[in-house]
Amino acid sequence: MSRTTEPSSSQPFVSLVGAGPGTPDLLTLRGLQALQRADVILYDALLEPDFAALFREEALALPVGKRCGGGTPQEHIHELLLTHAKPGVHVVRLKGGDPLLYGRGGEEAQLLEAFGIPFEIIPGVSALQGVASASGIPLTHRGVSRELRVLEGHHLLDDTVDWEELARFKGTLALFMATRSVQGIARRMLAHGANPSHPVALVERAFCEGQVTTISTLALAAEGHLCCRTEGPGLVLMGAVIHERTRPFASHFSVTHIHDPATALHRSERSPRAAGGRGERRAG
Amino acid sequence: MSRTTEPSSSQPFVSLVGAGPGTPDLLTLRGLQALQRADVILYDALLEPDFAALFREEALALPVGKRCGGGTPQEHIHELLLTHAKPGVHVVRLKGGDPLLYGRGGEEAQLLEAFGIPFEIIPGVSALQGVASASGIPLTHRGVSRELRVLEGHHLLDDTVDWEELARFKGTLALFMATRSVQGIARRMLAHGANPSHPVALVERAFCEGQVTTISTLALAAEGHLCCRTEGPGLVLMGAVIHERTRPFASHFSVTHIHDPATALHRSERSPRAAGGRGERRAG
Repeated sequence: MSRTTEPSSSQPFVSLVGAGPGTPDLLTLRGLQALQRADVILYDALLEPDFAALFREEALALPVGKRCGGGTPQEHIHELLLTHAKPGVHVVRLKGGDPLLYGRGGEEAQLLEAFGIPFEIIPGVSALQGVASASGIPLTHRGVSRELRVLEGHHLLDDTVDWEELARFKGTLALFMATRSVQGIARRMLAHGANPSHPVALVERAFCEGQVTTISTLALAAEGHLCCRTEGPGLVLMGAVIHERTRPFASHFSVTHIHDPATALHRSERSPRAAGGRGERRAG
Repeated sequence: MSRTTEPSSSQPFVSLVGAGPGTPDLLTLRGLQALQRADVILYDALLEPDFAALFREEALALPVGKRCGGGTPQEHIHELLLTHAKPGVHVVRLKGGDPLLYGRGGEEAQLLEAFGIPFEIIPGVSALQGVASASGIPLTHRGVSRELRVLEGHHLLDDTVDWEELARFKGTLALFMATRSVQGIARRMLAHGANPSHPVALVERAFCEGQVTTISTLALAAEGHLCCRTEGPGLVLMGAVIHERTRPFASHFSVTHIHDPATALHRSERSPRAAGGRGERRAG
């Protein structure tokens, strides 16, 4: 099964690697192989510190990328890539989620191509997949939703969005970088005719300790009741698929809060880990 | 990093595992751990035979799921899950791509929940991510596309689709199960005002031997020039992101055909494997 690449001594080589949603064991086998060959690792600062255990001891590992409101600008990452990609050196650029979905991996690939540096792209489990599996909310479901729309919430309120179209959309909506803008987005959707009881979910820290899912409605989100409970990362889902949610076993501490639309109070349920008695670790 | 689950002897346990786009080394580490604990493995028949090398010798491994036009109906998969999920038995249901994006994993999870069988969902690299990284086409790209729409091509022509909306959509469109319907879809989009030179790509066998990318236009696709060259699987992408394509190094044999809109003739380029001299295997 090993169809991996081998750095030669005459050229540099860069692997753009998707690290997955945050826990190291959702990295791919190919991603791990790349890390274990790497001389230099430029990793997103947002990645859990656990990833360090996968790095070669001999590798130079540098945290890069943006934390909320700060961090390394993309231009600096580009400089670092060019500085470290020397003949015979294998650089791994380890990026949260998948490199080519809101990961700016396309820009890094174009930079490397422009400078004649050979590179590969190793896909990762994106936050979409991570959030769905962690929360038990399917992205598509037969008879319920056959379509998925993925948007960037961060800039949605500034953009020329067709809000009526969005308000009447029947499929699954996934909003990246929307944890702070979800109230404004919900308000706009309601103003354009969306159903106030339309289900909305916010999933934070998918597959990591402290995972929280909040199940709410568009009306409650518009009133500001759908708030982050952690430092993130988080993804917002909207759509009838939320009603198809199951409660998968979780090997980490995980809780789901369910808003009661009548009272805006919460009912909370913990993941079925304790009941099954299968977890290696339990919440402290 | 090991936050895995351990089957107990008193209950059954089922892992719904996303296998990724087709090559075993794009499975996640957590997925591999589940396979290596499994007593019974129900795997999608479409998965490459290479996956068998990851199965425990002692495990009972059964191919299930649909091949084109035949195979095991979903009801039969449900029966198999219930038959094999006995106390103390760990069943892995290994599914191509991700379980919760067109994978019907939501239905399997609901079945297990209804029967009180503990289960987990381990996400996989979906065809979206696989196709993007394999072909070098980003799903989103700064200044080009901030939105991704994912649709099922198979039923699109029967559905009540808002074709005008689709024809004027500016983001990235990904069509699952559309290799046979792409001509009809392209015709409808053109009939509703889409730009004939709008780029369309068909990516087949992402990350597998014999990978083919065909870069074309909506007009040529409508005329039937965008055809499958392999037994699949394939995914159709549409959007300006196709112009942002780079040529990542491939560790397998891979070719890209580029349609010339003027003549409908092809220019072909091979992946930069041979040039880089890094491949373990070369095309025969």
